[in-house]
Amino acid sequence: MIDSPALPGSPEKPITAKPHERHRVQRSKARAHYDRETVHAILDAGMIAHVGFSSDDQPFVIPMLYARDGETLVLHGSIASRLCNQLGAGIVVCISVALLDGLVLARSQFNHSANYRSVVAFGRATLLTDPASKADALARFVDALVPGRAAEARSADPNELAATQVLLFEIEDASAKIRRGDVKDDAADLTLPIWAGVVPQRTIYGTPLPASGIAPDMTLPLSVQSLIEATRDLA
Amino acid sequence: MIDSPALPGSPEKPITAKPHERHRVQRSKARAHYDRETVHAILDAGMIAHVGFSSDDQPFVIPMLYARDGETLVLHGSIASRLCNQLGAGIVVCISVALLDGLVLARSQFNHSANYRSVVAFGRATLLTDPASKADALARFVDALVPGRAAEARSADPNELAATQVLLFEIEDASAKIRRGDVKDDAADLTLPIWAGVVPQRTIYGTPLPASGIAPDMTLPLSVQSLIEATRDLA
Repeated sequence: MIDSPALPGSPEKPITAKPHERHRVQRSKARAHYDRETVHAILDAGMIAHVGFSSDDQPFVIPMLYARDGETLVLHGSIASRLCNQLGAGIVVCISVALLDGLVLARSQFNHSANYRSVVAFGRATLLTDPASKADALARFVDALVPGRAAEARSADPNELAATQVLLFEIEDASAKIRRGDVKDDAADLTLPIWAGVVPQRTIYGTPLPASGIAPDMTLPLSVQSLIEATRDLA
Repeated sequence: MIDSPALPGSPEKPITAKPHERHRVQRSKARAHYDRETVHAILDAGMIAHVGFSSDDQPFVIPMLYARDGETLVLHGSIASRLCNQLGAGIVVCISVALLDGLVLARSQFNHSANYRSVVAFGRATLLTDPASKADALARFVDALVPGRAAEARSADPNELAATQVLLFEIEDASAKIRRGDVKDDAADLTLPIWAGVVPQRTIYGTPLPASGIAPDMTLPLSVQSLIEATRDLA
């Protein structure tokens, strides 16, 4: 679906003043976007970042939850996490977020595709050490999972803050890639008696399951009500 | 959510006879799985692989569609794709697939989490050159998108096969990581008047949109009917 970064394009409002070569989309350049708004919107719609780095010439790709804060992606982990310590040491990192929006079924196998939105971002991470900043970052992290949830839950106490590492990944260069719309079949295939079309794919939320100890008739918090209402009409 | 690979665990039926250090889960070891069935089931449920590699000390993570064939993940791209040529040269690759199953909302911000299934796999890719094998791989690729679809669509012709690169990524080591089930709150938080619970997340398919030129009343092919029926009761 997504073919690769590279080679010069024609950015409008690039996410860095002097974009590097590494984030240039090489294939399907018509699908490439370099503007801040497009990159941010995809990052805000996603929940899992795939975090890539090398250690002793071995590439690793680790899925992590994240929150966007301006040009920064907030990541976190345990104080004992070797991953967080490695990332926080300032090594070069690549983070990718991809969202699948539909299956594109063509008359030919060859023209099958997918509708998607993706971002590939390059930069480095630093470890946050100030407890107040860590507390803010963790609250933002919870709100990225469910908007409004942080204010409903108990804030992190000093022991929990000490047990948590918060990483700030600064986006240096980024590109987005988007495919949307209809099937693209060869002209010679259009008369074949084969159905073709797009099957939309969506993420929805199911009925919340109260935790052990929560009364089944306890009113759902506003954050969860809003989350479910926002996707109800997609079902 | 997912903390990192590393350190010895206790695999039953590991996916390689002598698993390396690189795929050992370092954090939350109780969530780690090394058996073939678990790894394959997650790979079969996913659609987007995040493919990581290094080029000139720069890590890249590129989202790509994939199909599993035994211990191989099939990837593909254009013959002009620099990415495919790089991967096909036999460099070390790490591929990650992650599926989000639910949001875990605890009484404390600190204990917020997610239910997920993920795989991190290590290996190398080779380029497939034999046209018949490439044709088989492309058909499998289409069936990974929508089971049964390959037989309904026109097969790739020699020109299309020549324009396509097919990569076979051989899984050398892999681990899975799974979180499922209930919220885990601190005992001291259980009496707080805060709702806690799991909000399940699901992927469903919407009403298919026929391609331009397809009569709106044309019967949906069996592959698409089955796909939609399989997720209808999830909505």
